[in-house]
Amino acid sequence: MLKTLNTGDLTPKIEVDARIDKLRAGMAASGIELAIILQNVDILYFTGTLQRGVLAVSADHGPAFFVEKSIYRAHIETPLEIIPIKRDKEVKDILLEKKMYPARCAMELDVVPVAICERWKSLLGLTEVGDLSAIIRDCRLIKSEFEIEQFRRSGEICERVFEKAKTIVKEGIREVDIDAELLAEGRKWGHQGLLRMRGLNQEMMSCYVTHGYSTTVTSGADVPISGIGLTHAIGQGASVNVVRHGIPVIIDYGGGYNGYITDETRAYATGPLKEVFHKPFEVSRDIIDGTTAFAKEGADATEIFDRAFKRVKAAGLEDHFMGYGEGQVSFIGHGLGLEINELPVITPRHKTILKEGMVFAFEPKFIFPGEGAIGIEVDFVVRKDGLERLTKTPLDIVYV
Amino acid sequence: MLKTLNTGDLTPKIEVDARIDKLRAGMAASGIELAIILQNVDILYFTGTLQRGVLAVSADHGPAFFVEKSIYRAHIETPLEIIPIKRDKEVKDILLEKKMYPARCAMELDVVPVAICERWKSLLGLTEVGDLSAIIRDCRLIKSEFEIEQFRRSGEICERVFEKAKTIVKEGIREVDIDAELLAEGRKWGHQGLLRMRGLNQEMMSCYVTHGYSTTVTSGADVPISGIGLTHAIGQGASVNVVRHGIPVIIDYGGGYNGYITDETRAYATGPLKEVFHKPFEVSRDIIDGTTAFAKEGADATEIFDRAFKRVKAAGLEDHFMGYGEGQVSFIGHGLGLEINELPVITPRHKTILKEGMVFAFEPKFIFPGEGAIGIEVDFVVRKDGLERLTKTPLDIVYV
Repeated sequence: MLKTLNTGDLTPKIEVDARIDKLRAGMAASGIELAIILQNVDILYFTGTLQRGVLAVSADHGPAFFVEKSIYRAHIETPLEIIPIKRDKEVKDILLEKKMYPARCAMELDVVPVAICERWKSLLGLTEVGDLSAIIRDCRLIKSEFEIEQFRRSGEICERVFEKAKTIVKEGIREVDIDAELLAEGRKWGHQGLLRMRGLNQEMMSCYVTHGYSTTVTSGADVPISGIGLTHAIGQGASVNVVRHGIPVIIDYGGGYNGYITDETRAYATGPLKEVFHKPFEVSRDIIDGTTAFAKEGADATEIFDRAFKRVKAAGLEDHFMGYGEGQVSFIGHGLGLEINELPVITPRHKTILKEGMVFAFEPKFIFPGEGAIGIEVDFVVRKDGLERLTKTPLDIVYV
Repeated sequence: MLKTLNTGDLTPKIEVDARIDKLRAGMAASGIELAIILQNVDILYFTGTLQRGVLAVSADHGPAFFVEKSIYRAHIETPLEIIPIKRDKEVKDILLEKKMYPARCAMELDVVPVAICERWKSLLGLTEVGDLSAIIRDCRLIKSEFEIEQFRRSGEICERVFEKAKTIVKEGIREVDIDAELLAEGRKWGHQGLLRMRGLNQEMMSCYVTHGYSTTVTSGADVPISGIGLTHAIGQGASVNVVRHGIPVIIDYGGGYNGYITDETRAYATGPLKEVFHKPFEVSRDIIDGTTAFAKEGADATEIFDRAFKRVKAAGLEDHFMGYGEGQVSFIGHGLGLEINELPVITPRHKTILKEGMVFAFEPKFIFPGEGAIGIEVDFVVRKDGLERLTKTPLDIVYV
């Protein structure tokens, strides 16, 4: 009965097996004998279920998936065999029985808190643990066709939401009232309800409706436009700021389907935009067109950034590109997946050679203090011969 | 201009000073000379701003609040002096200058990931760090009148949402369609947009609309009713399950205002409820009435639980109380604040003597496999002479 109530597709066995194989290859290359996986999203990725448990994977022996709760749901959701446990203390003896001796062990040190890591070291009798983070990020970097299908479904939710926005955005409406309607619309079309961002203090809303002044206020978040929010206690997202004529309404909405996140930005306008936004919008479009023509498997992400930045400089817009002043960020694109800050990052800082199956959001944006912001965000999957669009984002201002 | 756009009240200096004083008293009692605070919610609590930074507090010298971004917003939001930094490497020398020598240092080991802790140990030249978690939880346990006012405002948002629900809940509607309308309603009345839950893998939605079968399916979350959700990748919240006659629609909604969370549950019904739900609803109400009559400053939380459980056993409902089978949880109430899992916990497991200013949600609930669930959740603040209700939750089924 659960399957019929839950609308998402379960992860097929062939997917789960391939993911664990990738993990073991990564472990072997790094001399790690046992991986202890504790973070919910990583457990979801490698098992197909988010239920509470611990996944142990050894280089030589099969995975051992310990589940505390709900065993009922985990049974339905994962193709792996489940080892039901009442408490974490049971794990060590079972690992020993299975000859998965916990030597040269690694954990997700980028997300696992110190106290939890120390508890597991003590439970397993370890003096040291290595870091599994980079290996897991690499496993998740290349998406399968199953995963790409989930992104497409997520993109369909976005499409419905952006269509709805055409009927909502108007002069005099508050950002938060637009946000409210779009959140509701997304849920009705199957939005999963929350989006995930990896790491300490990384928080994410599904919808960012910002306009004029709100687009120009920086936050602690590592994004070009975060909005003001309704309270300093969140400090991002829609505010009570009211839509005015001639200034773009920037709607950045994250779809979420079966865990997979798409991330789109469209600019809406009530009547002709002020002059200041014309050139930067053209440049945003040029950058997307140029990137689509240039990038494919084998291209270097730093070169994608450099080409975009060359176009920005030619237009004299470098002070406004991807933020202004302290708000400027050093990337133009970020990987997507079960979390919104996956690899690859399209930045001049890290050389990354694109490969088929990488998925990223690409978001040339310009911020003008005292005026507002403009930009577009599209989602791409890398193919051998080019970039494939995952979302239908129009490369035009949406006039309402 | 920011102040007028942001609807929440900023934290007054007298609040921030009192909080830091509590922290230093806790540090002194534990022999901690320097606290390094990194988690965003703790930074918000002790500084009044959520902007990206690091708060150092020494037992003998004043706090030093380093801010990376946004310095502009942090300046507006915190009454503390700000030390702007470009990168974390600058912190050590400034601490030394201020004679805040990093010996016997502690951090929030319950939430700070290993990799980040190791980085700070290396930046500050430490070999060991103590755990600040328990001290911070204790600081945050007793709420000030300023904080209680924020809860009240959060409760007002809940009230609007539950009023709206009366017009939405009807036979044949999907849980997720109710959820969508209520999310929108909450945002329009100023809901902050997300709720926080402390710790690894702790995820929280603002709204849980569950009905019949959905209320009886357990998840990995430590709650009596989590719902099925739209996908196994989230595994909680509203589903596509449709409302039927005679079965309660359980709406558990978390208000959020200026960071502060209220947490209410009301049961809606389209026409007379099936017999199975009558007695447990009476028992839920009796437990709330009994607790309101008994509890006040000085009462022991374990006794509150024991008295409730005695009433449950007298009704022969102990197998259904706070979950069923693997889904049963061992508390009937939990502390509220900037996070939804604060102290006190009302459980037989830990003795806690109530004190004026403690705030907790209290949620007697009963789950019946094959049928559905019923219960109520109210929020209390502890006073010298009794419990004060923070929310207007009616102790009746809401018939629509």
